[in-house]
Amino acid sequence: MHFSDKIEKRMQELDSQLVIGIDPHPEKVLDKSSRFAITLNSDDPEYLLSAFCHIALEVAARTACAVKPQAAFFECAGIPGWKALRRCIKMAREMGLPIILDTKRGDIGSTASAYARAYLDPSSEFFSDAVTVNPYLGPDSLEPFVAAAKKSGSGIFVLVKTSNPGSGAFQDAVLADGEPLFAKVARVVAAFASSSIGNCGYSNVGAVVGATYPEHLSILRSLLPQSIILLPGYGAQGGKAENLKAAFHPGGRGALVSSSRAIIFSYENSEPGQLSESRIFDAMLEAAQKAKKEIQAIVGTGASPTSST
Amino acid sequence: MHFSDKIEKRMQELDSQLVIGIDPHPEKVLDKSSRFAITLNSDDPEYLLSAFCHIALEVAARTACAVKPQAAFFECAGIPGWKALRRCIKMAREMGLPIILDTKRGDIGSTASAYARAYLDPSSEFFSDAVTVNPYLGPDSLEPFVAAAKKSGSGIFVLVKTSNPGSGAFQDAVLADGEPLFAKVARVVAAFASSSIGNCGYSNVGAVVGATYPEHLSILRSLLPQSIILLPGYGAQGGKAENLKAAFHPGGRGALVSSSRAIIFSYENSEPGQLSESRIFDAMLEAAQKAKKEIQAIVGTGASPTSST
Repeated sequence: MHFSDKIEKRMQELDSQLVIGIDPHPEKVLDKSSRFAITLNSDDPEYLLSAFCHIALEVAARTACAVKPQAAFFECAGIPGWKALRRCIKMAREMGLPIILDTKRGDIGSTASAYARAYLDPSSEFFSDAVTVNPYLGPDSLEPFVAAAKKSGSGIFVLVKTSNPGSGAFQDAVLADGEPLFAKVARVVAAFASSSIGNCGYSNVGAVVGATYPEHLSILRSLLPQSIILLPGYGAQGGKAENLKAAFHPGGRGALVSSSRAIIFSYENSEPGQLSESRIFDAMLEAAQKAKKEIQAIVGTGASPTSST
Repeated sequence: MHFSDKIEKRMQELDSQLVIGIDPHPEKVLDKSSRFAITLNSDDPEYLLSAFCHIALEVAARTACAVKPQAAFFECAGIPGWKALRRCIKMAREMGLPIILDTKRGDIGSTASAYARAYLDPSSEFFSDAVTVNPYLGPDSLEPFVAAAKKSGSGIFVLVKTSNPGSGAFQDAVLADGEPLFAKVARVVAAFASSSIGNCGYSNVGAVVGATYPEHLSILRSLLPQSIILLPGYGAQGGKAENLKAAFHPGGRGALVSSSRAIIFSYENSEPGQLSESRIFDAMLEAAQKAKKEIQAIVGTGASPTSST
């Protein structure tokens, strides 16, 4: 199934625009003194990362449109990290959960093709439903990813405007024609997007737009009419739900909201004393349901407040 | 030792500005029908990649200032690829060969720190002397890499102007103040570079500038007075030696020229019939010596042509 159709179907079935970012920070998951490692009574990085993913995936299966594992947090654990990521991808697939692997890769020609082979080729153990891609090297650096995505029915999300405080330095740079650079990038993404549209009307070429910059969302929504917009930075990074509305088409379509820390480390807010795996799951589930409802309230889906009284 | 001092020392000892790019394309190294796999009589990806690296490293030990393994070509082989990359890094270190790992990573805040932990932390199995970094996300996305490099004495090379045909689309975009984007990026890199200078006068914060764009080299050389400039695209990508001169300071200092395919696949030009490991080594060595001499001739180092008659 075309990536955008898979996302659209799950979005409607679960009535959820939420993406759970799986960012297993080493100091919170692997450090011997972390609450997670103490609770699981292990110092084996592959086991700890796999167990963390398993809990987050069980939560996502009940609440989220997709999961977004962050490659960096697996890479920094070396080979055991890669083995855990492989298991995470396998588990997600078995659960029917779409996986957006946050790799932010970008390179030229045959090197970009090698990255596409690593993550968008069904024969790879790291085959994901979609990856994030960095556009700095130019349109020709995106082509191999677009081609691989078309071939395997997977998707890509191109970084257009990121959520960090310093994203403006280059992305907002005003060009001689008066437009910021991110708009120029968006036009290139839109052209690629129009070449691969699913039955639902959306493309498998999406865009990443930080949830922290609401003033850009409506501009980018109109520049990218056929792209699914992935909005990271909601929750812990300061992005607020009410700022996100401009990214959505009517009925809560066309955008996904990613939240990581506020969900996956929610158990750290629980009282001191012994945690258990089931309490960690419960805390994550509660935080995910809360995020899902906040987003529903903004986009106008979900049970209406009046009908539930 | 500070990364720039290590490079400077080896550059002088070997009288070489050459970097050998290790890009083991799967169709040339892993495919059963490739000349390399047939010669080594194996279909084990970890063995084939490790053996390929070993030959390239032996060649580099005799001719090159550093090696630049391209992460994508290991990643696309999955876990066996990562194991081979780990071995490649270990072998290079044992040979005293500086490793510039071409990762082109880039992300924000704690995620960038995780990438830095993966590749610039001495406790990591993938610890390299330097990595390449993508600046699109902004100066704050570079900071964790700069900080990690300072701490471990390693280096980074920030993509400023890449060697591919489409690099102009965004990197050359003219800003309202009349400058291209790559110049703005260069100024940010120069500011970081000035904060971490080795005894040799160069910074551990370098820049990648494609060898295919000679018209930009002198501009970028002056914008980046303290950075080592890494010039990929020499050889197979069409970059010519005589175009490179503007990147160097007098005495052939301050820049490195990377060549991949023209060296590491030079054995494919040999006559049909059975290759052997030693013939592959000989072909690579000959190509590397040729590239080294071409570069010496341009920068004015090496034995002078008159003195050798």
